Amino acid sequence: MDIHQRIDTAIMATLARGQGGLAAPRQLSEALVYACTPGGARIRPTILVSVALACGDDQPAATDAAATALELIHCASLVHDDLPCFDDADLRRGKPTVHKAYSEPLAVLTGDSLIVMAFETLARVAPKAPDRVAPLVTALARRTGMPHGICAGQGWESEPEIDLDAYHLSKTGALFIAATQMGALAAGQEAEPWYELGARIGAAFQVADDLRDALGSEASLGKPAHQDELHNRPNAVRELGVDGAVRRLGDILSGAIASIPSCPGEASLAHMVRMQAERLTPGLNPVRV
Amino acid sequence: MDIHQRIDTAIMATLARGQGGLAAPRQLSEALVYACTPGGARIRPTILVSVALACGDDQPAATDAAATALELIHCASLVHDDLPCFDDADLRRGKPTVHKAYSEPLAVLTGDSLIVMAFETLARVAPKAPDRVAPLVTALARRTGMPHGICAGQGWESEPEIDLDAYHLSKTGALFIAATQMGALAAGQEAEPWYELGARIGAAFQVADDLRDALGSEASLGKPAHQDELHNRPNAVRELGVDGAVRRLGDILSGAIASIPSCPGEASLAHMVRMQAERLTPGLNPVRV
Repeated sequence: MDIHQRIDTAIMATLARGQGGLAAPRQLSEALVYACTPGGARIRPTILVSVALACGDDQPAATDAAATALELIHCASLVHDDLPCFDDADLRRGKPTVHKAYSEPLAVLTGDSLIVMAFETLARVAPKAPDRVAPLVTALARRTGMPHGICAGQGWESEPEIDLDAYHLSKTGALFIAATQMGALAAGQEAEPWYELGARIGAAFQVADDLRDALGSEASLGKPAHQDELHNRPNAVRELGVDGAVRRLGDILSGAIASIPSCPGEASLAHMVRMQAERLTPGLNPVRV
Repeated sequence: MDIHQRIDTAIMATLARGQGGLAAPRQLSEALVYACTPGGARIRPTILVSVALACGDDQPAATDAAATALELIHCASLVHDDLPCFDDADLRRGKPTVHKAYSEPLAVLTGDSLIVMAFETLARVAPKAPDRVAPLVTALARRTGMPHGICAGQGWESEPEIDLDAYHLSKTGALFIAATQMGALAAGQEAEPWYELGARIGAAFQVADDLRDALGSEASLGKPAHQDELHNRPNAVRELGVDGAVRRLGDILSGAIASIPSCPGEASLAHMVRMQAERLTPGLNPVRV
């Protein structure tokens, strides 16, 4: 089973449990799966599992739970970000957004339920690795909520003056930091040495996303393009131009690879970062590392 | 320090940490506290702490964390329930709802952040009582998310046919079950024997809420009255009449007191249930137990 299959199997098993069969409200039950499929690249859990593997992956159930929890939080954030009061998006991953396909109340509840399910999933690690539950819950919560998680990142968009570093670090960086740190924690290692790799991958992803938003079309993205310009949000292409943004992306990724802590799977991790970079910006070839 | 002070101190300390000072977005930071104050009766955490005290309260920090987490989830649910796509409420606890005072995006984010903060708070129990973190996270998540928590309860309102028992148990009962079970877990006891007390208090609260919604005014409730009729939701007063609903409330509460598991603080717990019942329905005197 490759990483992608492994992650999807874990996520689908967790969702099935959360759906609850006939004793649960049918539409909300369906919307949970709708919001998390098709999975796309599952970049964050892929990074998480890659780090866990590089650290030995001595408790695969902990790694699976961590990867699932992280992806559920990511999917929840997409559902809420797409709501009419935020991006008011009709399409996501090439299909109608949750509030379009179901309703706005069900989209709010889907996001809420997925957030709760994420933490519930981490608690299920207890029978096999009781000492890893609290560090995983803490790492995920810290990068999800206030004051430094993706909620804070979205919160900055309501401020008259944005602290740009805090904004990017929390809005996009946070879940990549969670990915590398939770991967290490799931394998019984310290989280701290893995902060920089996550932060750098997050920064790279932000620049790549800016490039795709500026250069892409709705058809190629599976969601509306040019949203940053429309919503007057900061964007690296507006700041640096296309060539400058591509150069910055390459620099960040070189630094990311250089920051990988010494561990048994160091080389394969570097390979994974290169692969993700190519996937992020097809045709732009920013990475010559 | 009485229970009410103890709970408020714990909640305010947790919120201050979540606000994050100057490095966080200011409005979202403020909205977190706005959504949780003034506290009102703090019924759920009061029940939780009362159960923990009745069980010995051997780790007060665990009890405080559990009470805080439960109340944060309750406050989050109020913020999201008040949103335009649900109750579209302008008032809550006598002041503008979060989306009215701040904005709809900030109300969504406030709810999300409070949910995350609840689980983060439970993880902080680890240094003092590492084995209690996972059971507390599981108990809270189970009564919050899908398929049996308050999210499921709200989800039932989008269904063409409602399973009334599942609806009431999840919509109102869930957080009272969490209250009694988390109180026991925080004190190192089993959760299961405390299910019935929580479920019965929840059922009583539902009937009391139905009575207040049917008989109250916006001024006395601090929120709009007659919402059940307006939204065509099930209500015990519509089903049984006022006298019938008051009688049912009395029956449920007698059963609740009878269900209290044998423990050192059994008598004071029974007293607490009577006090909560009187507070729920001032002037109606349903309880002669």
